Amino acid sequence: MEALNKQLDFIIELDRLKGIYRQALVKSDKNRFENSAEHSWHISLTAEILQEYAVEKVNIARVMSMLLIHDIVEIDAGDMFAFSDKQALAEQQEKEIAAATRIFGLLPEQQFQAFNALWLEFEKAETVDARFAKAMDSVLPFLQNIKNEGGSWVKHKVKKSQVIKRNSFLEGLAPQLWLYVCQQIDNAVVQGWLLDE
Amino acid sequence: MEALNKQLDFIIELDRLKGIYRQALVKSDKNRFENSAEHSWHISLTAEILQEYAVEKVNIARVMSMLLIHDIVEIDAGDMFAFSDKQALAEQQEKEIAAATRIFGLLPEQQFQAFNALWLEFEKAETVDARFAKAMDSVLPFLQNIKNEGGSWVKHKVKKSQVIKRNSFLEGLAPQLWLYVCQQIDNAVVQGWLLDE
Ligand SMILES: [Ca+2]
Repeated sequence: MEALNKQLDFIIELDRLKGIYRQALVKSDKNRFENSAEHSWHISLTAEILQEYAVEKVNIARVMSMLLIHDIVEIDAGDMFAFSDKQALAEQQEKEIAAATRIFGLLPEQQFQAFNALWLEFEKAETVDARFAKAMDSVLPFLQNIKNEGGSWVKHKVKKSQVIKRNSFLEGLAPQLWLYVCQQIDNAVVQGWLLDE
Repeated sequence: MEALNKQLDFIIELDRLKGIYRQALVKSDKNRFENSAEHSWHISLTAEILQEYAVEKVNIARVMSMLLIHDIVEIDAGDMFAFSDKQALAEQQEKEIAAATRIFGLLPEQQFQAFNALWLEFEKAETVDARFAKAMDSVLPFLQNIKNEGGSWVKHKVKKSQVIKRNSFLEGLAPQLWLYVCQQIDNAVVQGWLLDE
């Protein structure tokens, strides 16, 4: 039962992601902060639903697995706001690599290697699957802000140019989604949710 | 953009599952109640990690999709404690069928049909994929209670026989997991977390 015990320890460790809170707000639950576990659930389904917009065919099962595990490192490293400065983002990356080794390392060797590789693939964002997964990870908070009068953008004085940059790889990956995002960004500026710079 | 608008409405509607709370407690987040969105994330990963214990090969991508969507009906129908009485469970089922029609019905026709069929397959628990998914949906709360001094069992005075019944289809599906569960049930009785009846 040694492998099973390791797997169960990992599964129980996952519980802690439910206590890692992000900047996004859950409008339907009294505008409390969103945690990274429920966020991971939400973007996996978002990827499944929007897969038809990917120009190159994605392996949706891999994309969904990637999205389910992409934030697990935050159990040790915490969540970092997407629009933080460069130095903070670089330090965060080192913490996340150590976290992946510790947390995925709870699993039996083969699963450890598989999960670690999938997480690294997501981080590097070089394959089509990883790029589509990354796109979902930025498009969903985008939608949430759009539907929540600007949400976390307003509080953090986020600029139009930052949001464009963060979502711009949609342009090649899923042009129809990119078109939608551009229209909504323009509207968000008109509404005063994003700074016009 | 009509299909896209429907899909985005559905994606935003999903946010509400983050406000549906279950009986399970999140030990690592001050023992607050667990919501159904983070629960769905957790069991999808549990299924991925434990798939090797299924005696008949499961299509893990289908199982994971099933688990990601299995509780969405609770947005309208609410969560029902697994050990509620029969009449309450029957009424709940009717509410859930109506909920599936309304919520999955937000999607374009083809996706509506696919999601609705997948959810019904889970509910009927006749296929191997659905039975394995169901097993994960009962084994994870089981583990959470084991690791949390009996968790919701103690409060609700749950009996050993109820927990055995709820997990018993593990016996044929994944005998190694079933063996583990039986050992832990015996221990839970010794600890006083389950009533010995
Ligand atoms: Ca449920």
